[in-house]
Amino acid sequence: MDDKTVGDRLAAWAREFDPHLEALLSESPQVSERLSEAMRYSALLPGKRVRPYLVTEVGSLLGAAPADTRPAALAIECVHAFSLIHDDLPAMDDDDLRRGKPTNHKVFGEGMAVLAGDGLLALAFEVLATQARSPQVAAGWVAELAEATGRQGIIGGQAADLQGETQPLDAELVGRIHRSKTARLIQSACRLGAIAAGASAEDYRAVSDYGLQVGLAFQMADDLLDATSNSEALGKQTAKDTDSGKQTYVRALGVERARDLVRDKLDLALEALARFGARADNLRDLARFVVERDH
Amino acid sequence: MDDKTVGDRLAAWAREFDPHLEALLSESPQVSERLSEAMRYSALLPGKRVRPYLVTEVGSLLGAAPADTRPAALAIECVHAFSLIHDDLPAMDDDDLRRGKPTNHKVFGEGMAVLAGDGLLALAFEVLATQARSPQVAAGWVAELAEATGRQGIIGGQAADLQGETQPLDAELVGRIHRSKTARLIQSACRLGAIAAGASAEDYRAVSDYGLQVGLAFQMADDLLDATSNSEALGKQTAKDTDSGKQTYVRALGVERARDLVRDKLDLALEALARFGARADNLRDLARFVVERDH
Repeated sequence: MDDKTVGDRLAAWAREFDPHLEALLSESPQVSERLSEAMRYSALLPGKRVRPYLVTEVGSLLGAAPADTRPAALAIECVHAFSLIHDDLPAMDDDDLRRGKPTNHKVFGEGMAVLAGDGLLALAFEVLATQARSPQVAAGWVAELAEATGRQGIIGGQAADLQGETQPLDAELVGRIHRSKTARLIQSACRLGAIAAGASAEDYRAVSDYGLQVGLAFQMADDLLDATSNSEALGKQTAKDTDSGKQTYVRALGVERARDLVRDKLDLALEALARFGARADNLRDLARFVVERDH
Repeated sequence: MDDKTVGDRLAAWAREFDPHLEALLSESPQVSERLSEAMRYSALLPGKRVRPYLVTEVGSLLGAAPADTRPAALAIECVHAFSLIHDDLPAMDDDDLRRGKPTNHKVFGEGMAVLAGDGLLALAFEVLATQARSPQVAAGWVAELAEATGRQGIIGGQAADLQGETQPLDAELVGRIHRSKTARLIQSACRLGAIAAGASAEDYRAVSDYGLQVGLAFQMADDLLDATSNSEALGKQTAKDTDSGKQTYVRALGVERARDLVRDKLDLALEALARFGARADNLRDLARFVVERDH
């Protein structure tokens, strides 16, 4: 199956998923309508929805119906949107564009952007706890997503990234940042799907490995795109990471060596799926798509 | 029992509780040591620890041992610290002092302060999910605390507060802000204790009512202190809310009418405890202490 087809499949998936996300973000009378607007603005920006897709696909591979994985699919997209809003803040990466649109603080102001991120983070856990099929699944989901988000995950990675801008270039540090900041949440998507399905320890480990390698490849491919693409195709500022002195694989290792590493990660991701045979082809296609995408 | 004694009891409680909080915040190898420092800095500032005390006291009243309520006591203090860090940010209330010390962003910078708040919020849910006695309690706790924190709770209240600075003074709006921003979390402390104890619906409702009224009285008393006290006693800037045009009861109603309202709320809080008899005396003392405190 070629990349075009995977892209089409993801687009079809996003069309089906987004109304659920929209319904969640429109629910119930709000204390502050402006806050709801700010949360909706970023969470509903068109995107590939790779993380919720992974939750759903892994769940499906291991026997969970889409309705059983949906709360986790919604929650992980909320966490992803939270992290983008806060990363874009002037005090962090100071970005003006995200997915081709003005970033949240550009539209709603810095204070409201901080709160919109906070609100999406809290909402993620609320959805997991209130919509899970059972308390066991709820507790497992919250433990997993909170760890992937917190001081050992995205937030810790962003903090290391923030400090990294003032430190000398270091491939080990780049690896640590990428692992916690990006790869961990993609791994978490796979784990949330497995938890919903009540997976065996072996299946859980296999999809965890797959998710980690895909996540590492994803971030490296992103660095390569940032270094070699232009802002029109990407819908955000490019060569920005390089200019800012941010820690990237491309800066630490050069373009060619970074490309080799992406290939290695892809191979490891595909290897991790061996035990599932042809039933895991959708996940294999996604891994290749993530690496070969041009935007 | 006089206020001095309640103050002593709270101080003794904080001495017992704080080592648990410190242990939680020192756990496990961190991705970013600086992030951990920033999280510890704010969460461990000396404080009265009223919210975790309420979790524990309500739990104890309804039959839960301290060990069974501890995860919720830790989590609610993390959420409280999160909200203070983000509220103090330059893009929000722009405060330089908190509990007599420089605020988080003054010490660690704005970006790290945003992340420290984020990290404490995620940690709260991780603690609930991983340390609860059962998946049922974990799921109940997360649902409750996430709602109290999110768009309907603190975060929604802070957003309304942020917008209120540009709106005409309005007692109804002040009430809505106080309810979601402050009272809801104090109510949540009581609910978390009740959930740990597996409380009956009637007991749950009674401690919920108590918590809400104490929370409203607490915020009003805070407004009164801000308007009538000086910064030395309070350890933070005073008359600041009045100067900034922030929505407060004192501005909307005047000092005398605000004092009457605090009394009303205290009466309602005590009434809610009637069903528990003398066993709820600690909670009665706390309600009076909250209203009559001078710092």
